[in-house]
Amino acid sequence: MPKKVGRTYKKAGLPPGTLIHIGEIKNEHPAVTVVDYDDNNLSIEKSLPIKAALSKKKDASYRWINLDGIHDSNIINSIGSFYGIHPLVLEDIQNTGQRPKVEEYEGYLYIVVRMIYFDNNINEITTEQVSIIIGKDYLLTFQENKDNFFIPLIERISKGISNIRKMGIDYLLYAILDLIVDSYFLVLEKTGEEIELSEDSMVISPRPETLRKVHGLKREMLYMHKAIWPLREVVGGLQRRECCLISNTTSIYLRDVYDHIIQMMDTIETYRDILSGIVDLYLSVASNKMNEIMKFLTVFSVLFMPLTFIAGVYGMNFEYMPELKFRYGYLFVLMVMGVCFISMILFFKKRKWL
Amino acid sequence: MPKKVGRTYKKAGLPPGTLIHIGEIKNEHPAVTVVDYDDNNLSIEKSLPIKAALSKKKDASYRWINLDGIHDSNIINSIGSFYGIHPLVLEDIQNTGQRPKVEEYEGYLYIVVRMIYFDNNINEITTEQVSIIIGKDYLLTFQENKDNFFIPLIERISKGISNIRKMGIDYLLYAILDLIVDSYFLVLEKTGEEIELSEDSMVISPRPETLRKVHGLKREMLYMHKAIWPLREVVGGLQRRECCLISNTTSIYLRDVYDHIIQMMDTIETYRDILSGIVDLYLSVASNKMNEIMKFLTVFSVLFMPLTFIAGVYGMNFEYMPELKFRYGYLFVLMVMGVCFISMILFFKKRKWL
Amino acid sequence: MPKKVGRTYKKAGLPPGTLIHIGEIKNEHPAVTVVDYDDNNLSIEKSLPIKAALSKKKDASYRWINLDGIHDSNIINSIGSFYGIHPLVLEDIQNTGQRPKVEEYEGYLYIVVRMIYFDNNINEITTEQVSIIIGKDYLLTFQENKDNFFIPLIERISKGISNIRKMGIDYLLYAILDLIVDSYFLVLEKTGEEIELSEDSMVISPRPETLRKVHGLKREMLYMHKAIWPLREVVGGLQRRECCLISNTTSIYLRDVYDHIIQMMDTIETYRDILSGIVDLYLSVASNKMNEIMKFLTVFSVLFMPLTFIAGVYGMNFEYMPELKFRYGYLFVLMVMGVCFISMILFFKKRKWL
Amino acid sequence: MPKKVGRTYKKAGLPPGTLIHIGEIKNEHPAVTVVDYDDNNLSIEKSLPIKAALSKKKDASYRWINLDGIHDSNIINSIGSFYGIHPLVLEDIQNTGQRPKVEEYEGYLYIVVRMIYFDNNINEITTEQVSIIIGKDYLLTFQENKDNFFIPLIERISKGISNIRKMGIDYLLYAILDLIVDSYFLVLEKTGEEIELSEDSMVISPRPETLRKVHGLKREMLYMHKAIWPLREVVGGLQRRECCLISNTTSIYLRDVYDHIIQMMDTIETYRDILSGIVDLYLSVASNKMNEIMKFLTVFSVLFMPLTFIAGVYGMNFEYMPELKFRYGYLFVLMVMGVCFISMILFFKKRKWL
Amino acid sequence: MPKKVGRTYKKAGLPPGTLIHIGEIKNEHPAVTVVDYDDNNLSIEKSLPIKAALSKKKDASYRWINLDGIHDSNIINSIGSFYGIHPLVLEDIQNTGQRPKVEEYEGYLYIVVRMIYFDNNINEITTEQVSIIIGKDYLLTFQENKDNFFIPLIERISKGISNIRKMGIDYLLYAILDLIVDSYFLVLEKTGEEIELSEDSMVISPRPETLRKVHGLKREMLYMHKAIWPLREVVGGLQRRECCLISNTTSIYLRDVYDHIIQMMDTIETYRDILSGIVDLYLSVASNKMNEIMKFLTVFSVLFMPLTFIAGVYGMNFEYMPELKFRYGYLFVLMVMGVCFISMILFFKKRKWL
Ligand SMILES: [Mg+2]
Ligand SMILES: [Mg+2]
Ligand SMILES: [Mg+2]
Ligand SMILES: [Mg+2]
Ligand SMILES: [Mg+2]
Ligand SMILES: [Mg+2]
Ligand SMILES: [Mg+2]
Ligand SMILES: [Mg+2]
Ligand SMILES: [Mg+2]
Ligand SMILES: [Mg+2]
Ligand SMILES: [Mg+2]
Ligand SMILES: [Mg+2]
Ligand SMILES: [Mg+2]
Ligand SMILES: [Mg+2]
Ligand SMILES: [Mg+2]
Ligand SMILES: [Mg+2]
Ligand SMILES: [Mg+2]
Ligand SMILES: [Mg+2]
Ligand SMILES: [Mg+2]
Ligand SMILES: [Mg+2]
Ligand SMILES: [Mg+2]
Ligand SMILES: [Mg+2]
Ligand SMILES: [Mg+2]
Ligand SMILES: [Mg+2]
Ligand SMILES: [Mg+2]
Ligand SMILES: [Mg+2]
Ligand SMILES: [Mg+2]
Ligand SMILES: [Mg+2]
Ligand SMILES: [Mg+2]
Ligand SMILES: [Mg+2]
Ligand SMILES: [Mg+2]
Repeated sequence: MPKKVGRTYKKAGLPPGTLIHIGEIKNEHPAVTVVDYDDNNLSIEKSLPIKAALSKKKDASYRWINLDGIHDSNIINSIGSFYGIHPLVLEDIQNTGQRPKVEEYEGYLYIVVRMIYFDNNINEITTEQVSIIIGKDYLLTFQENKDNFFIPLIERISKGISNIRKMGIDYLLYAILDLIVDSYFLVLEKTGEEIELSEDSMVISPRPETLRKVHGLKREMLYMHKAIWPLREVVGGLQRRECCLISNTTSIYLRDVYDHIIQMMDTIETYRDILSGIVDLYLSVASNKMNEIMKFLTVFSVLFMPLTFIAGVYGMNFEYMPELKFRYGYLFVLMVMGVCFISMILFFKKRKWL
Repeated sequence: MPKKVGRTYKKAGLPPGTLIHIGEIKNEHPAVTVVDYDDNNLSIEKSLPIKAALSKKKDASYRWINLDGIHDSNIINSIGSFYGIHPLVLEDIQNTGQRPKVEEYEGYLYIVVRMIYFDNNINEITTEQVSIIIGKDYLLTFQENKDNFFIPLIERISKGISNIRKMGIDYLLYAILDLIVDSYFLVLEKTGEEIELSEDSMVISPRPETLRKVHGLKREMLYMHKAIWPLREVVGGLQRRECCLISNTTSIYLRDVYDHIIQMMDTIETYRDILSGIVDLYLSVASNKMNEIMKFLTVFSVLFMPLTFIAGVYGMNFEYMPELKFRYGYLFVLMVMGVCFISMILFFKKRKWL
Repeated sequence: MPKKVGRTYKKAGLPPGTLIHIGEIKNEHPAVTVVDYDDNNLSIEKSLPIKAALSKKKDASYRWINLDGIHDSNIINSIGSFYGIHPLVLEDIQNTGQRPKVEEYEGYLYIVVRMIYFDNNINEITTEQVSIIIGKDYLLTFQENKDNFFIPLIERISKGISNIRKMGIDYLLYAILDLIVDSYFLVLEKTGEEIELSEDSMVISPRPETLRKVHGLKREMLYMHKAIWPLREVVGGLQRRECCLISNTTSIYLRDVYDHIIQMMDTIETYRDILSGIVDLYLSVASNKMNEIMKFLTVFSVLFMPLTFIAGVYGMNFEYMPELKFRYGYLFVLMVMGVCFISMILFFKKRKWL
Repeated sequence: MPKKVGRTYKKAGLPPGTLIHIGEIKNEHPAVTVVDYDDNNLSIEKSLPIKAALSKKKDASYRWINLDGIHDSNIINSIGSFYGIHPLVLEDIQNTGQRPKVEEYEGYLYIVVRMIYFDNNINEITTEQVSIIIGKDYLLTFQENKDNFFIPLIERISKGISNIRKMGIDYLLYAILDLIVDSYFLVLEKTGEEIELSEDSMVISPRPETLRKVHGLKREMLYMHKAIWPLREVVGGLQRRECCLISNTTSIYLRDVYDHIIQMMDTIETYRDILSGIVDLYLSVASNKMNEIMKFLTVFSVLFMPLTFIAGVYGMNFEYMPELKFRYGYLFVLMVMGVCFISMILFFKKRKWL
Repeated sequence: MPKKVGRTYKKAGLPPGTLIHIGEIKNEHPAVTVVDYDDNNLSIEKSLPIKAALSKKKDASYRWINLDGIHDSNIINSIGSFYGIHPLVLEDIQNTGQRPKVEEYEGYLYIVVRMIYFDNNINEITTEQVSIIIGKDYLLTFQENKDNFFIPLIERISKGISNIRKMGIDYLLYAILDLIVDSYFLVLEKTGEEIELSEDSMVISPRPETLRKVHGLKREMLYMHKAIWPLREVVGGLQRRECCLISNTTSIYLRDVYDHIIQMMDTIETYRDILSGIVDLYLSVASNKMNEIMKFLTVFSVLFMPLTFIAGVYGMNFEYMPELKFRYGYLFVLMVMGVCFISMILFFKKRKWL
């Protein structure tokens, strides 16, 4: 997860509702998509200028406006005043460091979630804020990136698959949340594979590269946990709403999304436990290896030190050293050394150091 | 627990209720068992084709349909449309990564639990998803494997043991849950024995194999915890239901199952604490052993270094080295070495290094 | 706590209420005691056969039946059918791995607690399951062991001490719980003393035996925690009951028992924290000691290596080595060695290694 | 905190309400103080015998009886029967191992708190149980020690400072709790200073004495946590009481005490986190130091071993060793040694070991 | 965070409401600012003497009095008696160790929060207590320092930006809280950058300076956690108030502040997890490095010890050592040494030590 931990907080001390885009600009040319649909009618318009999009005659019961790219405060502002959105909501849409949440306002709900996907361009997991506003007959979505993540949904609507057009705007909200949550699984699965590889290579031979890899994976899991944990409250809250905007039929579908999230939380927790276990194992195995090395060094040192000493003694140049004159002195010393050596080896065998 | 952590999520982006089997196919030839029973009547039919099974005349008050093998979407779909089951339920039946849960729908409950047993073929603990749907007068069970795990129950029904036929379909649900939970105990007991063996061998002599074993046991306990923890909510929820489908009489029996689960949670927690304690003990004992080895090395090095140095000094070839000419030079140096040696040994004795 | 972690679960797959004794048989000859008492009347009969005991005319308002030894299913069954006890309760009475709990049935409460005491025969802490059933005017107790743990209570009743006979059967329940909880304190106190000894010996000189001792104590505390934690709910639940079977007067006494349990939980938690602290201290001190040993070895090696090298150089046998011919060559080399030695010592002093 | 962890539980098996003093006898000669006061009247009598104290005519609206020394069961009993106190309360007053708590009885509240102060005589932090009973118009306090801790309050009453005499007996309760809680701050402050000293000395040079000191401080914080944590419930409970004995005006004052306790809990938690951090730092720094020492030893050994070996080779006494005869053999070998030495130093420089 | 952990508690034993300033005096000359404002009127008076400030005619609907510097009990007292503030509140205003909290009194709320900012003078993060009292039409703020932190707000009021003057006094409370919370972000961001630097330098080469830095950052995060955690309850409580003093319109704005706090808590928690991860990584990498060093030492020692021993053997001065006379003895021994050396290297290669 490459995202920098700190983010520039340009807004300290400004009055509330001041619209400034906060975050990396991921899309230079914002694009508006307007989808009007119901059971009988359908109209999809891409890349309209914002004015045209808002003033366009509504061709069906439900209107979905999707904006790709959020750094242009004018566009946000136009949409906001057209639908009467609270300035604090507009502020949050542009401030991309939001935590997943749902906020209730008069006549609409404001929902923030995060998409997580593997960006093939930079070869890294990337995260992106998605803001959703749902009213009685309209739904607004705001993505950071140029690419429209919701194209599969537009296709489902245009082809009329799985009665998405027969159901209300709240079912569209469900479909969006489901799409986002499903995309998490792909990331989780990839991580799961890497964890297994790391564990296997750790059990076979503990190496510092693997440790650094595990450290990175722990970090990724930490970020995923932070992104998904509040999402649980968001979807749970939507599903349990007793009144308005979310129908009972859709509620059952939201329970399914909630179920997926719980499952992911579970998996993430398991992954974190496993990763901790791997680090523990590494430390244990490393400490064990150290022991082996120390034993080896000790055994070797202890084997040769006395022998070298004995050789040193008979290398002294004293004039009067009777042993040196003995016929079998040399042989005897060699034998003493041999006995010394063997008895020490037996000693270590007994101590199970060899 | 050999199951891979990651699982292929083939469904990302598909509309809800699309039936695709997700998971390993454990049974190539799904088998349907239909049991019609009440106090007076009984009819057991095995391996009927699904059409015949569903159109078969109901011979008694209660019908229990068990399906072994869930990868065939057609069969699932037939049963689903016959009993009016929600598509999301059918989806979950085929997706074998479900977390234990209970979901209420109009007219029936959907329950997911997991069986855990020791598979003698692969010599490993195995886990299997069991889906249960209970309606007013019918009960549907879906197992992954070819083997019918519920044969003891069918026998109890056919022999009329322990008034299982005198009580309602909810009592059958209880009997199934009890059977599954009881099977956990066998696995737990086996693990308990392995833990004790590991601990004993750790206390006697800490070895890396034992450590790896303990790591594996910790992992197993982690998975069992994850499988049993949500089961607690499932059974607790069923037992506390105030209305419909579960009678008061059965509720008392479910409390007994709940009690078993609590007991298992307790045991698992204890096992995890014990396993952590073993790892701690290992590290402490290993660090202690290291200390011993280091002391040994140090004592030995320190004993011989000065002696070898002295020998080295009198091995020098200077022409003018008066000591070399002394009659008792050699003897004197040997005595100096001896004194040196003994006093160092005394010093280490005082420091309790020897 | 010598009890094996795993216990044989013979019952997997049997219908509920099948009476089989599970656990070690601690008493070959079960003994029944019947105490009939009220303010004016008293009758105590020991070791009656079960039939006689149950058919005996009730001599007073309250009857207390105590059974020592629970492996005989016939006896349990006789008592059960006489008082109309649910089969699941009878099952739990014989299954000695129960977790402390209270279960409400129509007309009676079923309570499981555990006694913990130091068994002088095997020199170990022992745990025993006590099952209690309290009805309107009767109380049934089931102990595993031959020895009747409740003899002090029978004496209090027979001597009429502390108005135990003036109060209802619920006060007898209190008296039993109080007796059991009080016995925990004795065990805790013994453990407290051992912990203090361990800590003292750890601070003075860390040794692996102490570590193993601490490991054992941690284990004991773990088991005590597991036994006492659910007891808290049991007594708390009894004390807060608003209706029937437990009177307000007795409720105040139960609050006192509850208070004792809270105090013990507190003490156990403190002990566990202290034991963890001791292990941490051990590791720190051990790592410190290792440092000392390494420093010592390093200093010694570093002091002698260069000296030995110099001696080695002048032990070479080259024909042309001018220094060897110098009049004061030997003296000079000795002085060089001395200077080398002293300056290294000063260096280490500066680095605070000496 | 010098108090022994274990305490003698002399009462196991005795009937409830048996009055036996449990704990160290801190005061041989119990002293009774009787303070009668209201807005207009005041009478303070010290060291009356208990009979006289109880039978003394009440001179004002409120009576406060303070007892210093609790080992004499007769005195406790006299007070208890005079005011109709429950035997379990009297039992707890004498049993000094109570956890802070508040218990409601008919007509009065029983409160247990603990005083913590630095005892200059034994140079150690000391803890003491204070029992408080508050009725409609009387307040009873029981301290373990001879010294009356409440003298400042008696002075405030006698001088009529801060309208203590204008308010009810519940305000006196507040004043006592405030006095006790304030005294905790002094102990905490002292500990805070020691923690800072320890941390500074740890950062500069990690030494085992500091570690032992930190261990002691952790232990102290553990005890303070245990004493203060339940106090929070006690004062919080008193403050939230809706009915009787505690007036609304006093409730606001109790909230202030509650606030102090929360602040202390916060500080204690911070201290514990800091102390843990210090230990972690110690281990890290120690491991780092070990690394340094090992590097030093390794560098030195590696520098001299090959040189010593070369010298050894040319110290061999073979007859045919052509190098020995060379004119510049010695010089050449010295140069080889020098090159060897320098290149190894460069190697270590590159590896950043020097 | 330079603030000393302990703080002088001068007040132990004093009656409640005694006004004594506790904490460092940060401002010798307290300054009073009075702002009277509503939609149409505005009057800003700086540095009035307190008497004049309080007796000044109110020029508009709302009055905001800000005091910079709180050590002068007279000023606090004057304001307190003018607005009828409870003595305990005045006490807390002067006691700068308060934990963030909100207390309800009749007719007003008392709120304590803490400002955190980077003090450029002392180059350190500094914390400062801000007390706020909000009544129906007045707001009182008390800062420790001479500098008025609220100047941006006064400017917004004087310029009438963002309808601050159109809304009630509760909106001013919101604006103040928002200003304070925004300032936390700046500190968090700075810390975030330092954490990233530390992590990078840790991954590249673990050094004790970085470790000490990380220790300091952990400490800072600990303090920020302690300051922000209770703030969450404060703002959450204000936002959820159902009655009086806080209007519904302002409540929505307070929810935004609450949201910011949750986000900060999240970030702080993440930072703490990351910092822990860095320390773990350090220890792992250090242990790995140690292993490398030990291996190196062991390999070197083991390579040269036998060679040196062999050289020592042939350096002995025995008269009868046949090998010494051999024509190719020297050559042979050199070859033996070479073979020895190479085979040991191969052995280490096989063991992956080289
Ligand atoms: Mg702002
Ligand atoms: Mg804001
Ligand atoms: Mg987040
Ligand atoms: Mg979290
Ligand atoms: Mg995020
Ligand atoms: Mg967990
Ligand atoms: Mg989907
Ligand atoms: Mg789905
Ligand atoms: Mg599903
Ligand atoms: Mg799971
Ligand atoms: Mg599972
Ligand atoms: Mg049972
Ligand atoms: Mg625990
Ligand atoms: Mg069973
Ligand atoms: Mg059962
Ligand atoms: Mg248990
Ligand atoms: Mg537990
Ligand atoms: Mg137990
Ligand atoms: Mg008591
Ligand atoms: Mg007792
Ligand atoms: Mg008692
Ligand atoms: Mg605690
Ligand atoms: Mg305590
Ligand atoms: Mg205490
Ligand atoms: Mg206060
Ligand atoms: Mg915390
Ligand atoms: Mg005070
Ligand atoms: Mg106070
Ligand atoms: Mg704090
Ligand atoms: Mg603070
Ligand atoms: Mg916002």
